[in-house]
Amino acid sequence: MTPLSRREFLATLAAGAACGPVLAQGRPVVDGAALRARLEALSVFGRPAGGTFADGVSRVAYSDADLAGRAYVIDLMRAAGLDPRIDPAGNIFGRRAGADPRLPPILFGSHIDSVPSGGNFDGDLGVLSSLGVMESLSAAGLRTRHPLEMAVWCAEEGVAFGKGLGGSRIVAGDIKSADMDQVWNGLRRADAVRRLGGNPDRIADAIRPKGAHHTYLELHIEQGGTLDRAGVPIGIVEGIVAIERFSVVVTGVANHAGTTPMAERQDALVAASQLVTIVREIVTREPGPQVGTVGQLDVSPNAANVIPGVVRLTIELRDLSPDKLQRIIGAIRARAADVAQATRTRIEFAPLSSNQPALATPAVQEAIARASGALRFDTARLPSHASHDAASMAQLGPMGMIFVPSVGGISHAPQELTRWADCANGANVLLHAILEVDRL
Amino acid sequence: MTPLSRREFLATLAAGAACGPVLAQGRPVVDGAALRARLEALSVFGRPAGGTFADGVSRVAYSDADLAGRAYVIDLMRAAGLDPRIDPAGNIFGRRAGADPRLPPILFGSHIDSVPSGGNFDGDLGVLSSLGVMESLSAAGLRTRHPLEMAVWCAEEGVAFGKGLGGSRIVAGDIKSADMDQVWNGLRRADAVRRLGGNPDRIADAIRPKGAHHTYLELHIEQGGTLDRAGVPIGIVEGIVAIERFSVVVTGVANHAGTTPMAERQDALVAASQLVTIVREIVTREPGPQVGTVGQLDVSPNAANVIPGVVRLTIELRDLSPDKLQRIIGAIRARAADVAQATRTRIEFAPLSSNQPALATPAVQEAIARASGALRFDTARLPSHASHDAASMAQLGPMGMIFVPSVGGISHAPQELTRWADCANGANVLLHAILEVDRL
Repeated sequence: MTPLSRREFLATLAAGAACGPVLAQGRPVVDGAALRARLEALSVFGRPAGGTFADGVSRVAYSDADLAGRAYVIDLMRAAGLDPRIDPAGNIFGRRAGADPRLPPILFGSHIDSVPSGGNFDGDLGVLSSLGVMESLSAAGLRTRHPLEMAVWCAEEGVAFGKGLGGSRIVAGDIKSADMDQVWNGLRRADAVRRLGGNPDRIADAIRPKGAHHTYLELHIEQGGTLDRAGVPIGIVEGIVAIERFSVVVTGVANHAGTTPMAERQDALVAASQLVTIVREIVTREPGPQVGTVGQLDVSPNAANVIPGVVRLTIELRDLSPDKLQRIIGAIRARAADVAQATRTRIEFAPLSSNQPALATPAVQEAIARASGALRFDTARLPSHASHDAASMAQLGPMGMIFVPSVGGISHAPQELTRWADCANGANVLLHAILEVDRL
Repeated sequence: MTPLSRREFLATLAAGAACGPVLAQGRPVVDGAALRARLEALSVFGRPAGGTFADGVSRVAYSDADLAGRAYVIDLMRAAGLDPRIDPAGNIFGRRAGADPRLPPILFGSHIDSVPSGGNFDGDLGVLSSLGVMESLSAAGLRTRHPLEMAVWCAEEGVAFGKGLGGSRIVAGDIKSADMDQVWNGLRRADAVRRLGGNPDRIADAIRPKGAHHTYLELHIEQGGTLDRAGVPIGIVEGIVAIERFSVVVTGVANHAGTTPMAERQDALVAASQLVTIVREIVTREPGPQVGTVGQLDVSPNAANVIPGVVRLTIELRDLSPDKLQRIIGAIRARAADVAQATRTRIEFAPLSSNQPALATPAVQEAIARASGALRFDTARLPSHASHDAASMAQLGPMGMIFVPSVGGISHAPQELTRWADCANGANVLLHAILEVDRL
């Protein structure tokens, strides 16, 4: 899991550089070279000054870099004849007519916003592959039964306004007009949405009803290292894990670090440190892919010569099974009570957010499996431990996700890397999975 | 050690309110009522808006509040005929002639700067008692053999420019002219010193040679709870502990908190938390008054959904015995190496500062004991676990310190509290200790 050096990054990336169309025996194919060229072109918007593709990207939602990246993608969609339109939330949609206009569309896409100092594949790959799918069908003169619709969801990463899946979450109905008054970094959310071409005054019009689409499909990098380690090019996602987040406040007594004897201390950091250890211990004591993280921790007053009086931290837990998560949370809280007593501190838990798991529809998983088989790709089934726009769309209808390998499992970092060949392979599985789903 | 409520604070304070001069049988006496009035008057400079005495003070060195507090004290010194002068470092001195002008002065004093949200006794008591000593001798028409000199040291708390005992440390010779270029909160140190009426261009002229004074004495609140618990009004300080500070950097790998399996994590916070626990464990495993604290800890990138990649923390250790401290540091470093290996992180220690212990001169301790005995006060001998200007002055000649009780051992907080009677008692022990020392 050690990040690649710049040299290793470039060498690994180049390993797939020669890949062209993976097959062209009379079937439509997504152009891998064009996909690569566009991933490279999009990477410029938000690139650190003086950097290269290997330096990653900071394309935080609503930023100038985000606006520039969106303009680039909108131009490509227009050139592909997709007549792009922006919904009130700021999501971009582009449609290709089907043979039967009465049928609901097959929807697919991803996002192009990034975390600060993120990579060039998370989201971007799904968006530009969706565009490639549309183009490949036009090039082959093929018309699907269902209309096809691609989505460029806005603000997936949840950097701004503190909630992930911003645009797709709104489409799934998770929005109140009061949310438009939120302020982040001095920016009102209504103004942020307006920057993207959305309409905060009519935000509720962005909501789509259940059944608005036939199926939602999303191609994404795995972000973890399962496929890379196993050498498997295509992952079929079983579902997106539930995520439970808590904010924990540990309250002790701030006091002089010299004059307060050890026996009389009520050190909030000593208590919080025990809690960090306990979270890891409880999460790992039963087998399974569940994960638990203390990612944020702030000490007050945070001076070398003052015993910490208050520590605020987050606990995040993820697993496909909400029952398992509840069991883990219960165990952590019980042990936290012991720590509080032993350290004479107060430890308070408050729920921060709770995301239900989103299971991928079995029939859509099978369609992805058939598409992969037709293209002769090995596959592996796996859960997604990261959330995606697909989690929102699962609330409105059938959903499936395709994963491609992340080298070393690194993501949300400049070293995030998927070989060009794997990018092209994933795009073609997306294309053929859409064709499979079109027959359902 | 629980801080007092506002109501308890006021009730405890008032318990000593009626105290006047403790004895007046032909001997000089420091006026307790005047001392109280001045502590209350000084508390206004840096008081939170709308607050009272019980809300403590933020009189950080070089701030407007510090300048105002200094002006108040300078006026009092002038009224007492002390002809106050400011040295190039910004320290304030006031002299009273002795019978033999060839003798070096007996020096005594403290500081009036505070930590942010500090209390109204730390430093202030020593300064205003020193003034009271001068006035009581004049009122009694007494002339000592040695000249007397009171000092109002600047910037003792080390909030600005990151080093404690700013003014007294310079007088003891710990200054380079390059230090005047340091910047803190946008303020250049030279300009800060100039604000106080110092002269950064002639900063070396503030240095005093060894033997410049006969003896240095300082009255201070204990800050710890030893005297308060024992019900003893006067502490005779045996010495000021050595303080060793380290900055520790724990380097893991930042990664996605969802997609990175538990077994593959290199979590800098998990490692740092074990280190926090180990510091407490090693410091407490042998009996003795040594203390160890992790007071500052910063996590990067510090987001709920990212595994911490880097944690920076401080370790501070205090004891009278440097040998014991070296043994403790060695044990911590050995255990840290185990943690680094087990968590696959890197843990690096860098020394941040190292203060030698400053032992109080036995003959000065005896002088304080005799003065306390003459005034019929019980005494206890104890080390100071906080540093004081006396630590700098111990480098130039004999040194002694007098402690008075801190209610509940609370200090560096608005709840810092010493009863009025204890304030007056301490001031009178200072006076009589000076008279004892004058005979040596």
